[in-house]
Amino acid sequence: MREIPGIPYRFKDPDLLTQALSHRSLGRFNNERLEFLGDSILNFVVSARLFELKTTEDEGDLSRLRARVVRGETLAELANGLKLGDYIKLGEGELKSGGYRRKSILADALEALMGAIYLDGGFASCEKVIGHVIAPVMQNLPDAAELKDPKTRLQEYLQGEGLALPEYHLLSDEGPPHRKNFLVQCSSENAGFSVTGEGRSRRKAEQVAAAAALQFILGDTKK
Amino acid sequence: MREIPGIPYRFKDPDLLTQALSHRSLGRFNNERLEFLGDSILNFVVSARLFELKTTEDEGDLSRLRARVVRGETLAELANGLKLGDYIKLGEGELKSGGYRRKSILADALEALMGAIYLDGGFASCEKVIGHVIAPVMQNLPDAAELKDPKTRLQEYLQGEGLALPEYHLLSDEGPPHRKNFLVQCSSENAGFSVTGEGRSRRKAEQVAAAAALQFILGDTKK
Repeated sequence: MREIPGIPYRFKDPDLLTQALSHRSLGRFNNERLEFLGDSILNFVVSARLFELKTTEDEGDLSRLRARVVRGETLAELANGLKLGDYIKLGEGELKSGGYRRKSILADALEALMGAIYLDGGFASCEKVIGHVIAPVMQNLPDAAELKDPKTRLQEYLQGEGLALPEYHLLSDEGPPHRKNFLVQCSSENAGFSVTGEGRSRRKAEQVAAAAALQFILGDTKK
Repeated sequence: MREIPGIPYRFKDPDLLTQALSHRSLGRFNNERLEFLGDSILNFVVSARLFELKTTEDEGDLSRLRARVVRGETLAELANGLKLGDYIKLGEGELKSGGYRRKSILADALEALMGAIYLDGGFASCEKVIGHVIAPVMQNLPDAAELKDPKTRLQEYLQGEGLALPEYHLLSDEGPPHRKNFLVQCSSENAGFSVTGEGRSRRKAEQVAAAAALQFILGDTKK
């Protein structure tokens, strides 16, 4: 086999394609080193495209957008669209596993494939293929602001309005050490809100409280 | 200015070089977006070189070696060797700061410079420059095994010797919630050791205990 339908690249060395599709459950000849390589070239090509495309976003926005593109969930969806699962070779034990394992196997194989194409055809060929593969995601990027966490968004909103910054107070942390529940209050001196959030960590509870504050202020439903 | 002594690249667009050397303390025209781009190309070029150079290492070893090369401390040393500090432009407030801040400013500027070279001269030029800049580090890479954390090294050593795996027991966690001190015991059924480690988290205490066990078994002094 020298190519996969949907991926516009024909391998000179078919062994590289075979290796990219070989899960570690098969043994020593597997795609893990190729995945290491492919992950880093994917990361770079996505960074370069975002840099070009998003000319006014700061580096924080660029990082959040990149994380959205290269996260396992996105890559698994892309791999699914390419029916990559039909070509991946698994060892006995893995054949039965489903769900999360399967998603990460798909994402890893897609990365390994990009590493194999780089080795087989060089940077320019691989860059083109990556551009083709990620196109569906790049055409539907969310607004960079949406990717910010609620605390950051709340702080930036209040700053922009010239209002007092939010304050977070721990109201209680109850339960045994490994199953604590945190209750946090979030308020602003002159923005006229005081809401609470609950979570399994103080950090999580603060984010939930900030999301509640945004919802209160803006009728905002994004979490 | 179109070039920096020690970096074998002459810019077509001198503004890109100026921007790469402009710290964010100067204002809106700064090197943060270029740093985002440069970080990702550096990461990729280092990954590709390690892949080529270290043909028997697994992806875990490759990741640890890469982390060693691209970490801020290493980049700051390389930037120092290039006297990059003589060319970086800082705003008023930053001029007085030293130590850690200065190190990260140097590392960030080196990354930004690589991003600027990529934009100015393309991938192949940038790849060559990166190869030149990182050469001192690539020629002195540590053994991949040395970069593993003590728990991993202890487990692999015991496995290799056919001995029982280490067990970790929390002996105590004392102090107020935000300043707890953890004491952990590490022992192996038939490897003949029982040592303790202390730390500010359970994880840290386990690593300290594993390092003590390695020292006990091997006279090993690496932490």
